[in-house]
Amino acid sequence: MTREDGRTPDELRPITITRGWLDHAAGSCLVEFGKTRVLCAVAATEGVPRWRKGSGMGWLTAEYAMLPQATHDRSARESVKGKVGGRTHEISRLVGRSLRAAVDLSQLGENTIAIDCDVLQADGGTRTAAITGAYVALVDAVNHLKQQGAVKGDPLVDSIAAVSVGIIDGTPMLDLPYVEDVRAETDMNVVMTGSGKFIEVQGTAENAPFDRSELDALLALAEKGCADLTRLQREALDA
Amino acid sequence: MTREDGRTPDELRPITITRGWLDHAAGSCLVEFGKTRVLCAVAATEGVPRWRKGSGMGWLTAEYAMLPQATHDRSARESVKGKVGGRTHEISRLVGRSLRAAVDLSQLGENTIAIDCDVLQADGGTRTAAITGAYVALVDAVNHLKQQGAVKGDPLVDSIAAVSVGIIDGTPMLDLPYVEDVRAETDMNVVMTGSGKFIEVQGTAENAPFDRSELDALLALAEKGCADLTRLQREALDA
Amino acid sequence: MTREDGRTPDELRPITITRGWLDHAAGSCLVEFGKTRVLCAVAATEGVPRWRKGSGMGWLTAEYAMLPQATHDRSARESVKGKVGGRTHEISRLVGRSLRAAVDLSQLGENTIAIDCDVLQADGGTRTAAITGAYVALVDAVNHLKQQGAVKGDPLVDSIAAVSVGIIDGTPMLDLPYVEDVRAETDMNVVMTGSGKFIEVQGTAENAPFDRSELDALLALAEKGCADLTRLQREALDA
Amino acid sequence: MTREDGRTPDELRPITITRGWLDHAAGSCLVEFGKTRVLCAVAATEGVPRWRKGSGMGWLTAEYAMLPQATHDRSARESVKGKVGGRTHEISRLVGRSLRAAVDLSQLGENTIAIDCDVLQADGGTRTAAITGAYVALVDAVNHLKQQGAVKGDPLVDSIAAVSVGIIDGTPMLDLPYVEDVRAETDMNVVMTGSGKFIEVQGTAENAPFDRSELDALLALAEKGCADLTRLQREALDA
Amino acid sequence: MTREDGRTPDELRPITITRGWLDHAAGSCLVEFGKTRVLCAVAATEGVPRWRKGSGMGWLTAEYAMLPQATHDRSARESVKGKVGGRTHEISRLVGRSLRAAVDLSQLGENTIAIDCDVLQADGGTRTAAITGAYVALVDAVNHLKQQGAVKGDPLVDSIAAVSVGIIDGTPMLDLPYVEDVRAETDMNVVMTGSGKFIEVQGTAENAPFDRSELDALLALAEKGCADLTRLQREALDA
Amino acid sequence: MTREDGRTPDELRPITITRGWLDHAAGSCLVEFGKTRVLCAVAATEGVPRWRKGSGMGWLTAEYAMLPQATHDRSARESVKGKVGGRTHEISRLVGRSLRAAVDLSQLGENTIAIDCDVLQADGGTRTAAITGAYVALVDAVNHLKQQGAVKGDPLVDSIAAVSVGIIDGTPMLDLPYVEDVRAETDMNVVMTGSGKFIEVQGTAENAPFDRSELDALLALAEKGCADLTRLQREALDA
Repeated sequence: MTREDGRTPDELRPITITRGWLDHAAGSCLVEFGKTRVLCAVAATEGVPRWRKGSGMGWLTAEYAMLPQATHDRSARESVKGKVGGRTHEISRLVGRSLRAAVDLSQLGENTIAIDCDVLQADGGTRTAAITGAYVALVDAVNHLKQQGAVKGDPLVDSIAAVSVGIIDGTPMLDLPYVEDVRAETDMNVVMTGSGKFIEVQGTAENAPFDRSELDALLALAEKGCADLTRLQREALDA
Repeated sequence: MTREDGRTPDELRPITITRGWLDHAAGSCLVEFGKTRVLCAVAATEGVPRWRKGSGMGWLTAEYAMLPQATHDRSARESVKGKVGGRTHEISRLVGRSLRAAVDLSQLGENTIAIDCDVLQADGGTRTAAITGAYVALVDAVNHLKQQGAVKGDPLVDSIAAVSVGIIDGTPMLDLPYVEDVRAETDMNVVMTGSGKFIEVQGTAENAPFDRSELDALLALAEKGCADLTRLQREALDA
Repeated sequence: MTREDGRTPDELRPITITRGWLDHAAGSCLVEFGKTRVLCAVAATEGVPRWRKGSGMGWLTAEYAMLPQATHDRSARESVKGKVGGRTHEISRLVGRSLRAAVDLSQLGENTIAIDCDVLQADGGTRTAAITGAYVALVDAVNHLKQQGAVKGDPLVDSIAAVSVGIIDGTPMLDLPYVEDVRAETDMNVVMTGSGKFIEVQGTAENAPFDRSELDALLALAEKGCADLTRLQREALDA
Repeated sequence: MTREDGRTPDELRPITITRGWLDHAAGSCLVEFGKTRVLCAVAATEGVPRWRKGSGMGWLTAEYAMLPQATHDRSARESVKGKVGGRTHEISRLVGRSLRAAVDLSQLGENTIAIDCDVLQADGGTRTAAITGAYVALVDAVNHLKQQGAVKGDPLVDSIAAVSVGIIDGTPMLDLPYVEDVRAETDMNVVMTGSGKFIEVQGTAENAPFDRSELDALLALAEKGCADLTRLQREALDA
Repeated sequence: MTREDGRTPDELRPITITRGWLDHAAGSCLVEFGKTRVLCAVAATEGVPRWRKGSGMGWLTAEYAMLPQATHDRSARESVKGKVGGRTHEISRLVGRSLRAAVDLSQLGENTIAIDCDVLQADGGTRTAAITGAYVALVDAVNHLKQQGAVKGDPLVDSIAAVSVGIIDGTPMLDLPYVEDVRAETDMNVVMTGSGKFIEVQGTAENAPFDRSELDALLALAEKGCADLTRLQREALDA
Repeated sequence: MTREDGRTPDELRPITITRGWLDHAAGSCLVEFGKTRVLCAVAATEGVPRWRKGSGMGWLTAEYAMLPQATHDRSARESVKGKVGGRTHEISRLVGRSLRAAVDLSQLGENTIAIDCDVLQADGGTRTAAITGAYVALVDAVNHLKQQGAVKGDPLVDSIAAVSVGIIDGTPMLDLPYVEDVRAETDMNVVMTGSGKFIEVQGTAENAPFDRSELDALLALAEKGCADLTRLQREALDA
């Protein structure tokens, strides 16, 4: 069984990670999962939110957003509508939780790391590309902060990567582009550490409930995909 | 190993489902998971959102919200802040997706079902109580609509229940109250059909990544909890 | 002349006040005027608004709101609309002013009392039920704060109750349910102290201007109703 | 007993009504109650709100607002804050209800009258000045619409005027400027028809509850003040 | 060639500047350019925005707004819409930048001057009338602050005036009313100092691009108009 | 006199225009003026705003925005703040007006062209880069629409380019990067047609008023810069 774009079911799309895409950010990269293209930028600022002051610990937040013409049909700009949509909120929270799992906040001092993932072009898997790219930009930012002496500790505890999996016409498949995503019976986003543990598992029955064996097959596929992405992150960081 | 409230790890809190708690709504119930208390109400209106017009199919939406004094410390009212928070958005979307899985929208005609789940008191598991109660209110609403002749088909395809599970001090536990929830290393919300299939699996490493065997243990516990809730829903509906 | 529900013109609907309906709030009650059902909750927090700092005096605020399905036709949620409506604003301000009349703010210290009145079901008279119930919850909250030592003085100066009156087909009537309210020529909400003085008188010619003798008849009826409610509040607090 | 500005307790401040202050509005006036200065403008547009369509009846709305430097200390602009405050909402609703009492909406056809009352300078009594001035502008607007043939019927049923009264140091007084308003124990705004009936009675115990005899004294004073204003309106309209 | 209102192409409309139109503001005036009528008010408050604290320098902000019935067709109120429109934002920023050019902020101390320009009636040239009037109100406010001792230095460095110019049917014209403004091929707003230098030049091709010679003709006309306005400002301030 | 980056005063930064940077948009380009990097995208949709319906004419709108980490210090996201800032509003309006000058809207039919200019990295001149790039993307979009048959006429009437100029230490300079922009005494943005006429001239005295001869020098420099950009646009479109 081959897919429309010629991949095998357990094969990622071509992945590109271009580090240092921005000149001002402490760390940044442009990450591409096929035609999905996300600009990840990481800034560090002194101070933490009010509820964390005096704890001696840092904080990490993330915001995900999509440009109006990232999708095939132009969508209205959230700033013009005056509110952030539910999907945007949900994904921003997911990216933040996922990246916090990469960091020992007690090693950051009372500094805040702000991650921005802006989808320049969307073709499925934008949230998983965002998380995968954000990790690379985060490593560069942390190294930059250490060089500057702004961070003294060693806050990075593990690497983080994410991938989507889904069941299409009964077959579990890895890293779905938009055309597959809309047809999937079940759709799952999985965030894992480089050491092979789970950070987030979010499975949704889009068109049909799934049973335990389907769930197991999807999890196995996600483990394979995250391992591949972890290797590609390491290569990008070593380059 | 017993828990602070005396339950065994695979035991639900006392569950109460009071049908018809409201006089105006087409269907309603007050659902209680221990001290968590959620008022679920279901309304039906003619017409569907613009993007669905002419499809001959219905629609179902849900909104979840929390009263300011539902929690121990009063939280600011979202209407006064002028925006819906990310957590509220995320749970509203989850409730909607979950309940849509109970319904064959093509049997509804071009009508919209609006579900409101308002948390009157929160003690952990509010989203799973909301989904479990909303299903009961939905059954009453659909029967009401059929009696009125507003719905001719048979839109209900399966029952839906949801439960939280988590790992606390290394032990997987069912249906976490707030005191357990904040201590959990890993926390998972699972939505299942009455026939034992999965609708949503949302697992999050709160304090530590989890491995595959922990994930398996949590899924097994959730299957047990959802089966119990399905039975309690049936009893409430038969009463 | 009897009314649709069998009451005499000067008779209240069945009034129920269930104290301690919530576990977290400093004071709370579920108050019912017939089918109108309002959940009143009272929280105390340290500190006062900026313009009151350093005065040594406390503050008291109130928010009134209605659940979407409290009324017969579902109304849109104000948090989702992103703004508080004029009616909500107006009643919140009325509740706040009324309850502040029960309290000597100089006895509170620089603490703020926040009252939330959430209408779970609406059948006329929601604002008067809210004020009447809020007073009971306030007494419990103040006693709780005194036990904790958070309040040293004796801030409660008088009890507060409120009732609606109106003229229907030329007859002044007490405590209008929705079916009477929409037919009323004139509609008045009156807030009084337990000692029989007025705090607020808000009369509105809904369908026809009213003359001085009609106004006098409505005021007499309101005095009777508030006296009845004061007695019921005392009974609830003594229970 | 004389007042700071030399008036007797039952005397209005100097009242000025300048008709036709604007060139574009269908009707307008600048109304002054002493130093309080309100610009009232009335526009008519075809069509009615959605919920009134097909009724054959018209509608009337009103908006009240205050310029930032109308008061002694500059207040933030509501458009910049992004929301209308509770006080503004409350007064806008009062002005609308009051003026609707002047109009037989069935004589308007499906047209909407929009009244804007903008406080250019505030020195107490802004809402009563707004109502009193809005009536004059409304008469001019209705006559203008009749001349244009846009309104065929005779929608004006009675004149409307409003005044504030209050108790200061135990003495009931008419038409309070700001310095008296802040000292008043009790404060009442009364809206009446030209034929001497009540449209709105809004009494508030600002600093002390009031008894029935004080209420009676305030009502008598308001009747006197509204009669004076009605005469001044008539003179302005006859000029 | 004469214009509809009988003016020559290089002639201003009748200009009226009424100082001290408000009682509370530190400085104020009602400025009229023909039927365009703008109320300018200036307030001073202690303190500066956060980003300027500790600089020892003051700040000056401006807000421009239009009443709903200032224009021929009533426009919706921005506070009710919940957001400030682009045009309002743009003009507010222009007024602020222009008036800051009149002031040496280092002579103000850490105080903020807030200028409000509210258009009561619009007939073209509202932003230029606002700037021209705001300067006069600013002079009165600064003198008031110096008398009070709140400002010790001499912050006013030059006078500021503004005028609109445009090309209509090929002829450059000064100070366009609405009927000319909508027909203009090109439209320019120019802000100048009393000493004849430029502060802002904003030219826009409304209906046709303009060449360099047209631009030169418009600039010459604007220089003439601003010189006339400077003289009228001086006369108003000397009165 | 040479500049920090080695350019002569009348020399543009390196300009890059990468067409077709997006796969979904009807036309798009990534335009770079030195380190300033703007993604321009053009979409066409059927229909026009309400006020233009039935005119047979099209419409063109533009939105300009900046990513949070486009600048050196991260700025808050406007969607999260819930409102569009004044600067964003002002530039969006400028881009829209400028590009409408390139188009004969009567040749578009009742279609709307939406232009999005998102600043990915900012180093001065973002609005002029946006306009210059938007024109190139617009040409590609119009050609695309004509190929599809969606546009039958020939709406493009002239090319549009924009550049910034300013006076630094008394010397007029072309195309200012951020380090020059903050030091400029005077700053001007000029939009011109390919045929050498002016569309917009926006000059601002940032730190000192400017006289007529300085204005003339800046205009001459802008004419030179726009001519260079027009040539570069043509080369990009011919490639």
